[in-house]
Amino acid sequence: MIILCTKEDLLSGVNTVQRAVSTKSTLPILQGIKLSATKEGLWFEATDLELGIRILLPVNIQEEGEVVLPARLFAEVVRRLPDSSIRIESSGHNINIFYNDSHFELNGYDPEEYPEMADIPSGDVIELPGPTFKNMIKQTVFACAVEETRPVFTGLLLQIEKEKISLVSTDTHRLAYSKSLLNGNEKEFSGIIPSKTMQEIYRLVGDEEFLNIKVSKSRVIFNFNNIQVLTRLIEGQFPNYKQVIPQTCNTKLLINTRKLLDTVERASLLSRDNYLKTNTVRFNIENSSININQYSELGKISEQLEIEQEGEDVAISFNAKYIIDLLKIIETDKVILETSGPYSPCVFRPENNEDYLCLVLPLRN
Amino acid sequence: MIILCTKEDLLSGVNTVQRAVSTKSTLPILQGIKLSATKEGLWFEATDLELGIRILLPVNIQEEGEVVLPARLFAEVVRRLPDSSIRIESSGHNINIFYNDSHFELNGYDPEEYPEMADIPSGDVIELPGPTFKNMIKQTVFACAVEETRPVFTGLLLQIEKEKISLVSTDTHRLAYSKSLLNGNEKEFSGIIPSKTMQEIYRLVGDEEFLNIKVSKSRVIFNFNNIQVLTRLIEGQFPNYKQVIPQTCNTKLLINTRKLLDTVERASLLSRDNYLKTNTVRFNIENSSININQYSELGKISEQLEIEQEGEDVAISFNAKYIIDLLKIIETDKVILETSGPYSPCVFRPENNEDYLCLVLPLRN
Repeated sequence: MIILCTKEDLLSGVNTVQRAVSTKSTLPILQGIKLSATKEGLWFEATDLELGIRILLPVNIQEEGEVVLPARLFAEVVRRLPDSSIRIESSGHNINIFYNDSHFELNGYDPEEYPEMADIPSGDVIELPGPTFKNMIKQTVFACAVEETRPVFTGLLLQIEKEKISLVSTDTHRLAYSKSLLNGNEKEFSGIIPSKTMQEIYRLVGDEEFLNIKVSKSRVIFNFNNIQVLTRLIEGQFPNYKQVIPQTCNTKLLINTRKLLDTVERASLLSRDNYLKTNTVRFNIENSSININQYSELGKISEQLEIEQEGEDVAISFNAKYIIDLLKIIETDKVILETSGPYSPCVFRPENNEDYLCLVLPLRN
Repeated sequence: MIILCTKEDLLSGVNTVQRAVSTKSTLPILQGIKLSATKEGLWFEATDLELGIRILLPVNIQEEGEVVLPARLFAEVVRRLPDSSIRIESSGHNINIFYNDSHFELNGYDPEEYPEMADIPSGDVIELPGPTFKNMIKQTVFACAVEETRPVFTGLLLQIEKEKISLVSTDTHRLAYSKSLLNGNEKEFSGIIPSKTMQEIYRLVGDEEFLNIKVSKSRVIFNFNNIQVLTRLIEGQFPNYKQVIPQTCNTKLLINTRKLLDTVERASLLSRDNYLKTNTVRFNIENSSININQYSELGKISEQLEIEQEGEDVAISFNAKYIIDLLKIIETDKVILETSGPYSPCVFRPENNEDYLCLVLPLRN
């Protein structure tokens, strides 16, 4: 393998794939980045066996070939290369990077041992709108479970039903749901995509108008720009989320999003350091205002926020973190809160937007 | 105590003093920030008994008084206050912060127990040029020792001898020295200032043309803008640094600063992860070039850098970190390197600048 390129080319490749490099694998070669010089250009590739990322860069290929290089060291060398023209030559499993009057030889792994990131030969291909899909990820990915005791809750349910696409996530205490139109689509798909994959899609999708996904029963490939993201699907049954979303309510509020966020953040300061670590915030909803009156050994807070109220007065307690998380991604000036009592699931929606909701279970106290 | 102010006032006060708050003291009240409402305005004050910082803010004082508030919680509350007008009233040791229709009550400490930050009644006052002094700190503070086994090496020697001011730091492996003119000064001072104090001075000095220092045998007060920084001096004898700075050399080089930094950073990547943790870089100086040829289990590097050379060829080994640290603060395009052999102290200076040098002891290998 012999290639001519710039520091920018190498940086772009490394930065795109590096987050798929395994950090905890016992298989040493998974700590590598694979470079494949082909007629198409230079492929960078990394995988942790669950997620794989590839990018093709149009550099000058003088001789084809493959190497696998230790990701962290290669990335640090690349970041410190000069802006001059760079020539890379492989020598067995190693490479020599030539720049100015100097060169750096990096010891690599045997590329034959690097796991193949297989294509999905006969999968359906579905076109998704780039900015919309990216926004749907932002609206839902935060509600995934972090603990891996029940794998289905660490992923997002992607459902495509002809002209409708939806993403759902839940950690069993809260649930986020976002849907959108998929004009002209005739195909169907349902699968649970790991949240790490979705975070990478969110990071890598730029201002592309569309991205393609190619789907099978166990895997999905996202294609956009010159990037491919391959992911395994999480096996298991996602809960029937539709039946937990209430269709009616006894109390409906319209609240200034920013003011509510500030209020809850202040109230949470009082309980954050306490030994119960509960971080509870209690909304006393009455007479078109939300009142919060709380105290701890650190002090007291008394907040009053004017709102528009329809229906009954009610007092509900929440985990403040869940309210803060969801209010941070609501972009409308006002947020709707719907509830049917202190022990019923509470629904938050942006004003004038039927495509998104976040449901939070109250705390019993 | 009753005051009217804005969020910006409170943020400014908290951000200025917060780094002097003790993080490891067993005396709980040192985790507090003291607020004193006086006729002059509102003083914010924090100390860890070694370093103290005070700032006076011109807010509307309705009633004088003092409180001491837990620093971290107060800072977080302040950051989350609305931009509306704010009223603070003390009630015993506690305060109530009023904003919009809400209020936050914070439990405080007994201000009587807060240690006094005493003035230096009869100390000499010396005026220092702000930007120059700030630059001198940057040029020297990095070479202080981190370990506290020998306290004098954790500080910077400040010497004022009439019209000359100098700062010196050393961790015994390297030494940084910076001097400047102090036009018209008649006074003298010599003392070892803790590096943490100097870092705070560096952070807090803005574009003030001058700052004053008031000195005594055991303490110093820096005054600038509306800020006072009080510090204890470190007791002990600073080494006689002048006798270790070589006055002659057998080899003198003129080197592109940026290229040398990049070269040493690349070379250090090879040894950084090795089990010896030495991070050695070896300069082979001959025929007007520096050659670096190194290898480890990770790979090899071969760098060649053209330089201007006077005098003998020589090969010297350094701790790469020390070379990287000093090259990062040299602002001239070219750096001078002077040495008298592989085991003699090596001096680095900016080109055309007799006011600064950094001396590094070579490694024996």
